[in-house]
Amino acid sequence: MSVKLITDYLDGFVTSDDFSSITDDVSLVEGTLSTGTCEGSDYLGWLTLPRDYDKEEFDRIKAAARKIRSDSDVLIVIGIGGSYLGARAVIELLGSRYYNDLSDLKIYFAGNNISASSIERTLRMCEGKNVSVNVVSKSGTTLEPALAFRIFKSYLEERYGREEAAKRIYATTDRAKGSLKKLADIEGYECFVVPDDVGGRYSVLTAVGLLPIAAAGFNIDALMTGARDAMEAFTSKDLTVNTPAAYAAARYLMYKKGKTVELMSSYEPDFVMMCEWYKQLFGESEGKQNKGLLPISTIFTTDLHSMGQYIQDGSRLMFETIVRFKKPVTDFVLQSDADNFDGLNYIAGRKISYVCDSAFAATLAAHVEGGVPNLVIEAETIDEHSLGELIYFFEKACAVSGLLLGVNPFNQPGVEFYKSNMFALMEKPGYEKITEMLREKTKGLI
Amino acid sequence: MSVKLITDYLDGFVTSDDFSSITDDVSLVEGTLSTGTCEGSDYLGWLTLPRDYDKEEFDRIKAAARKIRSDSDVLIVIGIGGSYLGARAVIELLGSRYYNDLSDLKIYFAGNNISASSIERTLRMCEGKNVSVNVVSKSGTTLEPALAFRIFKSYLEERYGREEAAKRIYATTDRAKGSLKKLADIEGYECFVVPDDVGGRYSVLTAVGLLPIAAAGFNIDALMTGARDAMEAFTSKDLTVNTPAAYAAARYLMYKKGKTVELMSSYEPDFVMMCEWYKQLFGESEGKQNKGLLPISTIFTTDLHSMGQYIQDGSRLMFETIVRFKKPVTDFVLQSDADNFDGLNYIAGRKISYVCDSAFAATLAAHVEGGVPNLVIEAETIDEHSLGELIYFFEKACAVSGLLLGVNPFNQPGVEFYKSNMFALMEKPGYEKITEMLREKTKGLI
Repeated sequence: MSVKLITDYLDGFVTSDDFSSITDDVSLVEGTLSTGTCEGSDYLGWLTLPRDYDKEEFDRIKAAARKIRSDSDVLIVIGIGGSYLGARAVIELLGSRYYNDLSDLKIYFAGNNISASSIERTLRMCEGKNVSVNVVSKSGTTLEPALAFRIFKSYLEERYGREEAAKRIYATTDRAKGSLKKLADIEGYECFVVPDDVGGRYSVLTAVGLLPIAAAGFNIDALMTGARDAMEAFTSKDLTVNTPAAYAAARYLMYKKGKTVELMSSYEPDFVMMCEWYKQLFGESEGKQNKGLLPISTIFTTDLHSMGQYIQDGSRLMFETIVRFKKPVTDFVLQSDADNFDGLNYIAGRKISYVCDSAFAATLAAHVEGGVPNLVIEAETIDEHSLGELIYFFEKACAVSGLLLGVNPFNQPGVEFYKSNMFALMEKPGYEKITEMLREKTKGLI
Repeated sequence: MSVKLITDYLDGFVTSDDFSSITDDVSLVEGTLSTGTCEGSDYLGWLTLPRDYDKEEFDRIKAAARKIRSDSDVLIVIGIGGSYLGARAVIELLGSRYYNDLSDLKIYFAGNNISASSIERTLRMCEGKNVSVNVVSKSGTTLEPALAFRIFKSYLEERYGREEAAKRIYATTDRAKGSLKKLADIEGYECFVVPDDVGGRYSVLTAVGLLPIAAAGFNIDALMTGARDAMEAFTSKDLTVNTPAAYAAARYLMYKKGKTVELMSSYEPDFVMMCEWYKQLFGESEGKQNKGLLPISTIFTTDLHSMGQYIQDGSRLMFETIVRFKKPVTDFVLQSDADNFDGLNYIAGRKISYVCDSAFAATLAAHVEGGVPNLVIEAETIDEHSLGELIYFFEKACAVSGLLLGVNPFNQPGVEFYKSNMFALMEKPGYEKITEMLREKTKGLI
């Protein structure tokens, strides 16, 4: 099986008639995607990437990963937004949020904030360790990663000398242009490519995501095979097969009928960063022209003890989408206890997965009854192949969903606004005109 | 200064006339809080806790923390919801999300999910280490912590023998009744109290939060002093002094005027779990009777590169509340670079905090212009005293806010719903009546 979608728990909020009513629109949108005639069509590289990816570079990624694992205790991945979220999400789902505690190679993500103490602490964690750096930035001038790279570059050069430092720095950047590419060529960093036709939030299956994932010891061949299997499975016009299109349709119908929030959740504690990846993917793709479902997330059962009350009984804004993995990675049987102080003996002899499955079904029934329609996305298990399928599923669903909504799912014009303001406040050449106005507006704040 | 509130950036969405119009309501609500006549008044222990806490127990907490630090490499804190969120939030804010990488004592939070692989991995991280356990559960029968404690108890007993294991288990539970208290008395675990009049989400300044925080090496005296200073400062009728009441009023006005979502954010990368704590506090307190602002969170500038587009330009559902720490814990000056490949030399010689402050002011101006009213909560710095103030600020604000909304901010009736369903599906004695109905409803799911 590939990724399944269960739409039986929409509780009459969205009906099969509703689905029928937009089948044509979905087909139309899918057509413009596959013919490359949709809005934002310069950024459709992800669509066929699982088949058309650069095999020579792929081998170099694996070789670089082997080198990092052989000569480093710490890998610093410098990047922000799409330049770190996918890698971190995959590593934490496959290797758990305790990845660094359980692995020989520690991976720290830097350059995604503006915090001196964060940088100082990351440097402290490098003390006495062998360190490599993967700097991920298409332009090389994005503020946060540039700031961090300036610091880590000089740290490596001080520790190893310029020549050896250069062998420990891997640049994932533009193929030909930009300041990081220029620097990398001069210093002799090994380079990997952020393709022109793949936006940041769609880039996890390019070198952007693949190098850190491979360095973490995961099988990127299986990841790509999973994505390719999904790519081939999801071309059908039949929405029971083309599940990402069906998911996009369900989201769109929910939105049109007044739901404003999609709550993504999973019973897998290591799915936290996958939720963050999902939020960027959908939030940045759809949140424009004052439109779009607000993507939020929880982890169950953890957050049933924090947001559970609100979901069950608060403002009726949301529907839920549960990502479920059919087969647990590990399982064991709960032992009986002679004293039974905790009263759990009624489930002694049962597997933990049985308890989790019961919680899942129970919660779904409770939330649906509370007026929260539920969608379930079902993946096979937590491994590279299954995750490759899931990633492609979400990417495809997001594109279809954005196009149904009538927005360009591949741009992010709103992100520039705060940046211009920031450059103006910091007197960056070229932004002087609005500096005074902004100082006036924000006086008293800083 | 104590915690400040800046209301100058509500962009005309909420005016000073609006504030004036509810001053009386706020006073009324505050009166019912201080006289203990509000709804849920059995749970007002947190209100005077910073003054009236049990000093003898407080000393025992510090002694237990010293013992844990002297005889353990790993502390497993078993608890869910309010029984772990506050402790984890404080430890990660004071000690950073890299706390475990930088500290001799590693603290892992267990019993907050139903995952065999999570338990297996946590056990693996205990291999060859000296381990203590703090189990936090008022009743001792909540499913997730009971499940984990059954496993970690037998693990400790196998490793250390029953007697030594008992010296390594600390039970934070009911003062007198419940199954965990009973077991603790029989086994001789040292016990700490979850007070009857303090709900889980308000319990961070009881033994629930204090023992893990003290074990992590933080100064809980300063934390309590901060909370007490806040408690004393926030009794004024003047909303410019009583900032939590002003914050509650602002939230309420925003909600009444159609905002449905509060986005909590901070430029501090280690504020992630404080946001989770805030979500439980407000979500569980207000999300009832189909009412309440939906609490969500981001970290800036990190998430400006994921949710920034949506905030700037997506559906106009939200207002933002930024928690800002005036004085950075660490700071340094960005060095000039001869080649200036990254183009950052225009800020060479500037401190990192200057760059962060600029990003903060710039983003606020951009979002306000995009139709997102902003509130700013200003704390002094990231230390125990300041955090004690901030915690009390949020607790007080939440109570006032819930009462203004007309709900009981101290109960969580909706949380029971999925639990009954779950017990029924698992055939727990007493729930048989709805088992068949639920099986029918959820068939095909599991």
